[in-house]
Amino acid sequence: MFALLRINTATGITTTEQHDSKEFLLGARTLTSRLVSRETDPTCDALGRNNTLYFANGVLSGTTVSSSNRLSIGAKSPLTGGIKESNAGGIVGLRMAEQGLRCIALEDAPTANSGWQVIVIGKDGVTFDDGEFLAGKGVYEKSDLLSEKYGKKAGCITIGPTGEKLLSASGIACSDPHGVCSRYAGRGGLGAVMGSKKIVALVILDDGEHKAQYTDPDGFKEGARKIVRLLKENPVSTKFTKYGTAAMVDICQELKVLPTRNFHHGTMEGAEKINAQTMYDTIKERGGEGMTQHACQHPCAIQCSNVYPDKDGKILCSPIEYETMALMGSNLCLKNLDTIATMNKIANDAGVDTLDCGAAIGVAMEAGLAEFGDNEAAIGFMEEIRNLTPLGRILASGCKIAGKVLGVRHAPHVLGQALPAYEPRGTKGMAMTYLSTPMGADHTFGFTLRDEEVPTSKKGKVELSKKFQVIGSRMDAMGTCNFVRYSVRDDMTPLLDLIRARYETVIGEEEFDNMVKETLRLEHKFNTDAGITAAMYRFPESFYEVAQPETGEKIDITDEETAEARRW
Amino acid sequence: MFALLRINTATGITTTEQHDSKEFLLGARTLTSRLVSRETDPTCDALGRNNTLYFANGVLSGTTVSSSNRLSIGAKSPLTGGIKESNAGGIVGLRMAEQGLRCIALEDAPTANSGWQVIVIGKDGVTFDDGEFLAGKGVYEKSDLLSEKYGKKAGCITIGPTGEKLLSASGIACSDPHGVCSRYAGRGGLGAVMGSKKIVALVILDDGEHKAQYTDPDGFKEGARKIVRLLKENPVSTKFTKYGTAAMVDICQELKVLPTRNFHHGTMEGAEKINAQTMYDTIKERGGEGMTQHACQHPCAIQCSNVYPDKDGKILCSPIEYETMALMGSNLCLKNLDTIATMNKIANDAGVDTLDCGAAIGVAMEAGLAEFGDNEAAIGFMEEIRNLTPLGRILASGCKIAGKVLGVRHAPHVLGQALPAYEPRGTKGMAMTYLSTPMGADHTFGFTLRDEEVPTSKKGKVELSKKFQVIGSRMDAMGTCNFVRYSVRDDMTPLLDLIRARYETVIGEEEFDNMVKETLRLEHKFNTDAGITAAMYRFPESFYEVAQPETGEKIDITDEETAEARRW
Repeated sequence: MFALLRINTATGITTTEQHDSKEFLLGARTLTSRLVSRETDPTCDALGRNNTLYFANGVLSGTTVSSSNRLSIGAKSPLTGGIKESNAGGIVGLRMAEQGLRCIALEDAPTANSGWQVIVIGKDGVTFDDGEFLAGKGVYEKSDLLSEKYGKKAGCITIGPTGEKLLSASGIACSDPHGVCSRYAGRGGLGAVMGSKKIVALVILDDGEHKAQYTDPDGFKEGARKIVRLLKENPVSTKFTKYGTAAMVDICQELKVLPTRNFHHGTMEGAEKINAQTMYDTIKERGGEGMTQHACQHPCAIQCSNVYPDKDGKILCSPIEYETMALMGSNLCLKNLDTIATMNKIANDAGVDTLDCGAAIGVAMEAGLAEFGDNEAAIGFMEEIRNLTPLGRILASGCKIAGKVLGVRHAPHVLGQALPAYEPRGTKGMAMTYLSTPMGADHTFGFTLRDEEVPTSKKGKVELSKKFQVIGSRMDAMGTCNFVRYSVRDDMTPLLDLIRARYETVIGEEEFDNMVKETLRLEHKFNTDAGITAAMYRFPESFYEVAQPETGEKIDITDEETAEARRW
Repeated sequence: MFALLRINTATGITTTEQHDSKEFLLGARTLTSRLVSRETDPTCDALGRNNTLYFANGVLSGTTVSSSNRLSIGAKSPLTGGIKESNAGGIVGLRMAEQGLRCIALEDAPTANSGWQVIVIGKDGVTFDDGEFLAGKGVYEKSDLLSEKYGKKAGCITIGPTGEKLLSASGIACSDPHGVCSRYAGRGGLGAVMGSKKIVALVILDDGEHKAQYTDPDGFKEGARKIVRLLKENPVSTKFTKYGTAAMVDICQELKVLPTRNFHHGTMEGAEKINAQTMYDTIKERGGEGMTQHACQHPCAIQCSNVYPDKDGKILCSPIEYETMALMGSNLCLKNLDTIATMNKIANDAGVDTLDCGAAIGVAMEAGLAEFGDNEAAIGFMEEIRNLTPLGRILASGCKIAGKVLGVRHAPHVLGQALPAYEPRGTKGMAMTYLSTPMGADHTFGFTLRDEEVPTSKKGKVELSKKFQVIGSRMDAMGTCNFVRYSVRDDMTPLLDLIRARYETVIGEEEFDNMVKETLRLEHKFNTDAGITAAMYRFPESFYEVAQPETGEKIDITDEETAEARRW
């Protein structure tokens, strides 16, 4: 049986339900997307009382399997107007497992002028604490205050000032193993959903007494070791171990899909100044608290995270991911890792998605508010966000709204969510994926880039995108890190065997994929019912009208093709 | 035959077509909505090259019939994402008639970094003039410069700085009989559409040689006199003659539907400080350039416009309409006509819709950016708009976006267009109309207020709204002022007889109403094809959840009822 804890944020009433279905078994996106589909009116105001916010861990949460403690957060998105699942690493999924919880649902909402509250979940139940001591503070300070009050090992979920102000690009920050809320479910504005419920933090205490029981303990141990072996044998995940996701900078520059100058270009002269090797060397050279390798959750055999130190060796920001390096780097023509790290740090403190606000700053630069390549101005934009100035609020509303307010038509987004770090005119596979996901432009949803024979051609990309939509969604479906997919893309049995050894439940490959596809169907249906029509799954017109200079390519994908890529 | 002049704003190529259909005969919204429906891809970017901007005068334009020289402007709206027709008084419709034109279409768009241009239309053809001398200037200065260059009697159409910056609540200003561009097609962001084409002004020279020919000159003269007689006999239009639309302040206060404090309330203590009598007395007392009665076009037997003078008798703003007095007055808890006049003047100069930015300021005050009732702050907000600061751009993007960026859920709009000055929870007829129009919340679309037996009840309001949708749309359908409707609502033959006497064409009442309804059908179809679904024809959730204190009423209208009110 799996527990769903429902907390009414208006009345304070809590109820716990026990469920025994396979969707509760798998948890993660399988569960959040089903619950959103089933329980949330697709036409509701995403910031209103009818939008429930779900937190779910996955089927292997609380076990010793590498990279399997992701936390899925689901709701209707204020950014896209459609369904959203955004997931993060960290320790919250584990703490939930220790409390015997598969899912927490924050329901209803108090009036906007109610005070801030902290919900605390421990073995003795649920309490509501006054949250005013956190209000208005940055995520780093909130993190310290939460650690102080609830212990460094508590699993904390919090939002930044942007989430408190209901801004559409605000994310949700979760505790990492050091007790710092630095692991972000950044995309889709879920921070604003949490803010709309006047919940400034959700704390899972470190007093849980549930321990994973195993049907076949030896089989499970062996299976867990096999996952580690697969990860350590795989060339992609091992590259991430050394360099982190920053390895993508060179790959994208080479393929001419490195977003540059507000997504007008696909290469940046001097990209090597912000590539993986430069970052690696900088971290090694500066030493101190810097780490080229770092785990966002335990256990993890990949450890793609990092700690980027300043010139004195003190931690400047952790982690810095490729997506941020591109959106806050090349996209703004910035060639300075310290600048990117500083921007990233402010974004984390403000509680805002680095992708959507990086893209929004690109729009602001195109609007003439600053020059591309201006490091000081770029950091200044982030400070505007952190200080919640009018300009900051525009930027923290995501690049679509920034484009609207600042009069820039070339705002790189689909369904209102900023494009991740692959310029779509140069990679029609990623373009197809951006246009096919119910979540708004999302790279993890179906990562074709490494498998495109001719990236600039759309030929065969419907099928390719769909293939990788399944491969990517499998990981989300069970709360496993996306980077595990490289090791199991052709054979999911190592993971499915672990489910059997843990719960006795047998889920075959076909059954599992059918569940994954059913999730996709439900998510698309939610969007349709929310009023998102086929013609909205498009890039802004300029991507169809103007060729990317480096590849000579425009978007040539039709509505029919994207509709096909969304059909399951 | 009726001429349609097509001007390609990217290539400069112009073509003239001659048409003989009844839709071209009627012109105005009958024509613009048909052309938009037929020629514009509903899914296009409203600020892209695929959105054509149409200007059409009406069937009685260029004649001596009172109040029949309205200019209809049509396109896809960047504010609502749906079809838009917004119309204005002034002399442009007349100048077009004198040039033998029924319609002008601005097609295509040059690249965003092209220079500004002025299109000049005269008896010798179309020329493109450099428009840089106007760029960035306020509408009043633009107006002066245009008069200087093209003559005080030229019919000029221009946009303000907000339109140049593509802001969604920017309007289009048209010359009044004194050569001042003060007659606004304010709603729906058409100023941004014009700005997207890099056309800063469209000038119709005063050298047209077309004079109206009459099939039955004596019948026409007699018919025109009859219209004047009907207007002068009608108690509503005669009240407007004395007081202008300001007469509505007392009526709405009495009915408890005067928007107050960001549409949370329906009455304002001290409303008499901004009512019609106070305005009338102030204008009379101050004298000078002030006028309680003023015509926006010639001929007009109503003359509901006014000229509001400052303390020294110098013109402060002309005109001031009820809608502005409410949205920029009671809605902000302001009780000072000078403040409202000043705000109105700045709005006109910035080129922005007074309704949508009044509503946006209400949202900003609710967000805590200033106190309700703070006169200085309110004027300050308008200066932000005029100066195109980030905050100003938020406000000039309309109240929906302002709500999104400033984190206020109670943003009074439907389809992204701000509610006009009738608090909908207190008048279910107007609420039904707001929810039924393809244009976004619009009061002229179907004005039920004077005919609701029980305003707070939704009973019978589908039918009532539909009745007045036809009555209101009849005026738009032929380019006649909305206020003429009071005189012909039960019998359209006085106007239809004039068409016969002018053109020999006979259009019966039933045929005419069928054309009106067909326009509505086409408009709704455009919106559906644009991706606007039934569930989007709603107020923000708070209007359904929270009762208006004065009436105890919430919105209780269902999607089914609004769908019925849109079915033709």
